[in-house]
Amino acid sequence: MSIGRRIYELVESLYPICRSITGDGVRRTLALLREQIPLDVHEVPSGTAVFDWHVPREWNIRGAHVETLDGERLVDFADHNLHVMGYSVPVDRIVSHDELMRHLHTLPQRPDWIPYRTSYYTEDWGFCTRHRDFERFRYERYRVRIDATLAPGSLSYGELFVPGRTDREFLIFTHVCHPSLGNDNLSGVAVTAFVAKALSSRPNRYGYRFVWAPGTIGSITWLSLNRDRARRIEHGLVAALLGDAGPFHYKQSRRRNADIDRLAASAIASRGGHVLPFEPYGYDERQFCSPGFDLPVGRLTRSPNGAYAEYHTSADDLSFVSPDALERSYDLVLDIVDAAEHDRRYVNLAPHCEPQLGRRGLYRSKGGETLPERELALLWVLNLSDGGHSLLDIAERSQLPFSVLRRASEELVEARLLAVSAGE
Amino acid sequence: MSIGRRIYELVESLYPICRSITGDGVRRTLALLREQIPLDVHEVPSGTAVFDWHVPREWNIRGAHVETLDGERLVDFADHNLHVMGYSVPVDRIVSHDELMRHLHTLPQRPDWIPYRTSYYTEDWGFCTRHRDFERFRYERYRVRIDATLAPGSLSYGELFVPGRTDREFLIFTHVCHPSLGNDNLSGVAVTAFVAKALSSRPNRYGYRFVWAPGTIGSITWLSLNRDRARRIEHGLVAALLGDAGPFHYKQSRRRNADIDRLAASAIASRGGHVLPFEPYGYDERQFCSPGFDLPVGRLTRSPNGAYAEYHTSADDLSFVSPDALERSYDLVLDIVDAAEHDRRYVNLAPHCEPQLGRRGLYRSKGGETLPERELALLWVLNLSDGGHSLLDIAERSQLPFSVLRRASEELVEARLLAVSAGE
Amino acid sequence: MSIGRRIYELVESLYPICRSITGDGVRRTLALLREQIPLDVHEVPSGTAVFDWHVPREWNIRGAHVETLDGERLVDFADHNLHVMGYSVPVDRIVSHDELMRHLHTLPQRPDWIPYRTSYYTEDWGFCTRHRDFERFRYERYRVRIDATLAPGSLSYGELFVPGRTDREFLIFTHVCHPSLGNDNLSGVAVTAFVAKALSSRPNRYGYRFVWAPGTIGSITWLSLNRDRARRIEHGLVAALLGDAGPFHYKQSRRRNADIDRLAASAIASRGGHVLPFEPYGYDERQFCSPGFDLPVGRLTRSPNGAYAEYHTSADDLSFVSPDALERSYDLVLDIVDAAEHDRRYVNLAPHCEPQLGRRGLYRSKGGETLPERELALLWVLNLSDGGHSLLDIAERSQLPFSVLRRASEELVEARLLAVSAGE
Repeated sequence: MSIGRRIYELVESLYPICRSITGDGVRRTLALLREQIPLDVHEVPSGTAVFDWHVPREWNIRGAHVETLDGERLVDFADHNLHVMGYSVPVDRIVSHDELMRHLHTLPQRPDWIPYRTSYYTEDWGFCTRHRDFERFRYERYRVRIDATLAPGSLSYGELFVPGRTDREFLIFTHVCHPSLGNDNLSGVAVTAFVAKALSSRPNRYGYRFVWAPGTIGSITWLSLNRDRARRIEHGLVAALLGDAGPFHYKQSRRRNADIDRLAASAIASRGGHVLPFEPYGYDERQFCSPGFDLPVGRLTRSPNGAYAEYHTSADDLSFVSPDALERSYDLVLDIVDAAEHDRRYVNLAPHCEPQLGRRGLYRSKGGETLPERELALLWVLNLSDGGHSLLDIAERSQLPFSVLRRASEELVEARLLAVSAGE
Repeated sequence: MSIGRRIYELVESLYPICRSITGDGVRRTLALLREQIPLDVHEVPSGTAVFDWHVPREWNIRGAHVETLDGERLVDFADHNLHVMGYSVPVDRIVSHDELMRHLHTLPQRPDWIPYRTSYYTEDWGFCTRHRDFERFRYERYRVRIDATLAPGSLSYGELFVPGRTDREFLIFTHVCHPSLGNDNLSGVAVTAFVAKALSSRPNRYGYRFVWAPGTIGSITWLSLNRDRARRIEHGLVAALLGDAGPFHYKQSRRRNADIDRLAASAIASRGGHVLPFEPYGYDERQFCSPGFDLPVGRLTRSPNGAYAEYHTSADDLSFVSPDALERSYDLVLDIVDAAEHDRRYVNLAPHCEPQLGRRGLYRSKGGETLPERELALLWVLNLSDGGHSLLDIAERSQLPFSVLRRASEELVEARLLAVSAGE
Repeated sequence: MSIGRRIYELVESLYPICRSITGDGVRRTLALLREQIPLDVHEVPSGTAVFDWHVPREWNIRGAHVETLDGERLVDFADHNLHVMGYSVPVDRIVSHDELMRHLHTLPQRPDWIPYRTSYYTEDWGFCTRHRDFERFRYERYRVRIDATLAPGSLSYGELFVPGRTDREFLIFTHVCHPSLGNDNLSGVAVTAFVAKALSSRPNRYGYRFVWAPGTIGSITWLSLNRDRARRIEHGLVAALLGDAGPFHYKQSRRRNADIDRLAASAIASRGGHVLPFEPYGYDERQFCSPGFDLPVGRLTRSPNGAYAEYHTSADDLSFVSPDALERSYDLVLDIVDAAEHDRRYVNLAPHCEPQLGRRGLYRSKGGETLPERELALLWVLNLSDGGHSLLDIAERSQLPFSVLRRASEELVEARLLAVSAGE
């Protein structure tokens, strides 16, 4: 079975769960991930102060519906977990049409889709429904019931650390708080779980720290509990929205020219991807890139958040993500990781004019034809390996894929034309 | 009455006057401005050495015409003051057709428009007329009369200084030497007069120095008389051509990245304006940006000089400028001034992760919707306020209007999340 | 006779010769050049170690053909010297159809053209023919004969040094190893010969070193024999492909912003040319820009190598190059040379405001018209001549041709408004 198919099956198994920023949905999600990888689950009690915030009360929901006074169900949580606004407080009473309308959300432009809404930090309740069902709400009064609890408990997050040869770390953070939405962000959860699995089985230069946590409050909580550890982060990615058909988008870190920014830009260039400038809005990169941390953490997505019609609606379902897109996202993350692992400076041992590659079997013998990418990579590595340019520098200047340059450097080392630079 | 309408009425009142680089036309113009603002009128005697130049003799004109020997008037200064070339020497004689032709200027491509021509520094005389009237000049001889004086006198310019809290100055220079041309430059004269009025009634960080003077020789004279004062200029604008329907154009100072260049570029970006690189041709920015001064003085216009068909012709009349365009130019100058007044560095007092804006009422409470510009501005100000970025830096990076960022900074200061940086 | 016509006639006289990287073809070529200019011919023995390479054995060919066993000639070197792959080893035997096919090169997409192929460093033999003649090869066996010698001898190259006032050098290198191909590179050989002739008859700031040598091994050999001299190279051009109708292309040196890169970019800008980034593939700039040398040597062509259909085929013949294109290439090289010769910093002697150019006769007297390029050049030179900007700096910023700025600087020096900067 292809890796893309295996990632997709993990997305499928996670899809039915109703997640929020706290509660059993997150715990069940992390438990399913533990079947793949040995992550630790952390529980942080409600009320814990985390910088300017407090860990909120825990929310759990058993059921919810709006019905007519005759008992006809007009909207039911049992049909789709997006029908209830996330973190809705418990309700059980009869409300007027006007009051219900203030709590009912639809998408008039997309009458077949249910919107996704939350109210984490302001006590409120709400239902979300398809706009084409709106005409069913023609009564004077309704019975509204949300069987939820909002009570002291804890915030749950998962963490897996894969140690490396050095004490420098590469952080991969994924938000895990959205209910039945496929691309946002079961795609990210599943792709990073399989990346973690791949990195666990091989020796690495960096330690890889994976965190699956709720958006915003999860990254704030993690940073609050790991202020010293955060300083070790040399590269970081917030990974999300990795299953749709859109082109890759890498959003730069606040620093704009951190190594991760250059590594990611190089890796997506040959895939037709786009680089977006940093802005302090988006996903959890907002927290890692706050001025008190200013960490080299960028964000990798396919279509960016808010940039596709299905975003935050029921149309972001299992049909919106594909095994193929997931697999190519997985490959991309590993390509970025490989470049971080293998970037180094080399020195050309025959720096005066070109060495004669042909007699070493490294170069086609007949003149007059066009040059294969592999031979161009050999020439670039030789030309710029003066101790001052790393393979990443060469990738940027040559616009060749890092992986091709890395293979070229290995061939040249074997041919004794190249050596790792003294400072590496 | 709208401010645009009031500026337009000032343009109307100035339009009939025949101005040149010296003479009573300038004096009458400055006298009309004095009805709005308490400017000082300076008189610099003819012959005064000003750097490589001398203040020229003063030119005044009472009337001028070309007529047939039968007394038929073919062109008459009384009809339009553009009919006589500026600084024409007195003439009163009969000339041949050939000689007249050497002194008669028309625009064959624009047969209904009278061109604007001058000869300040080479003694000459000339008439300008509509090309469609050209066929009337079919005689062998003509009587030519220019009743003008070119005699020792003085060069007049107006100056108004609005003191500020600091001894640093913001210069606003406007050329005042063109006869009946609406956009070039009664638009600039009138807009800056009203800007001066606005700044006079409020406390300012900078001292604002307004100079209304003839082009080239006026700025040279002012610089010659104010060599030491010029060193205090921290920002400067040559303001001209502010009444037409074209988009804004800001021409950079010689320095290219002076604060005024950045302030103006930021202010016109949200108005669809364009930034032009510095070149040593144009209006009086040429003198302020000569290498001996190299002052941070840029130029603000709508359509640039020479870039519209009506430029330097009778078609640049009162119908070519509009109250609306004048008002928007006035707003733009004040926006640039406001940004210079309020640009400073702040420090985020809760720099680790984002502060919880929602509980302070600064942030919408429901997740899942798009972000208003105001909230994006709050996030940008918080993210970049590390003591190293000013509001202008943030405006450039966020591409948000300075005014929106300034309001965001005020809200954050009030919420005690932000403080002015120690160095400010 | 125009210079373009004279260059073209030199191309014509060189065209029939069968050249390769060694052998009598190169010697005859250099002998024809010696009729124009007093170059020295250097002979470097086969086997000489030059960095990572050795000078190869010398190759000479008297004749070659493929014929049927009945004696019908199917392809004959006597018809076109491209019919034999360069450096083919001697052969004289009967071969099967299969074996011949492995040694027969055609261009199926261009059935009327003979391809150009070589195998310098791997012993091999081959024939090249028009694809439309391919059907003639329908026999079981063929008689193949290549009457060539591959034996110890020497590599020949030509060198001409035109001394200058300083000991700094400007290198112009041209490859001279291609057989009957007009644009690649008889165009370069002939243009540079006439440039050498022009520079020989005048005093120069730089010493000009012209080298006509075989591609790759020729520049490697020259660098190996001139390691110390190479350090004196302050500017360098590899000149090639200068006779076709395409636009100019300048390929930057490895340094990217060396003076030669700026000089060439400025010179081709007004000719609609293009600047290409450095890459370590191409012509002999590869050797000059190897990391052990990293010399400021760029490459000047019209259409770049490989970027036109006729490249390395028999269609790159005498009809593919024109006297007009050759002449304009010659002019361009001399323009680049002139800019290198005359680039210097000046100081404006009247730096406060503009000097009054009109009274010195340097400026049109009437206001209101558009500005000629010459007067704009005067203003630019005055504005930027603060001792910190050279004429080349001014050319880059003003986007005016260097030659126009140079004339402006001469006029201003004569008017005592400008002086050469103290440091020059």
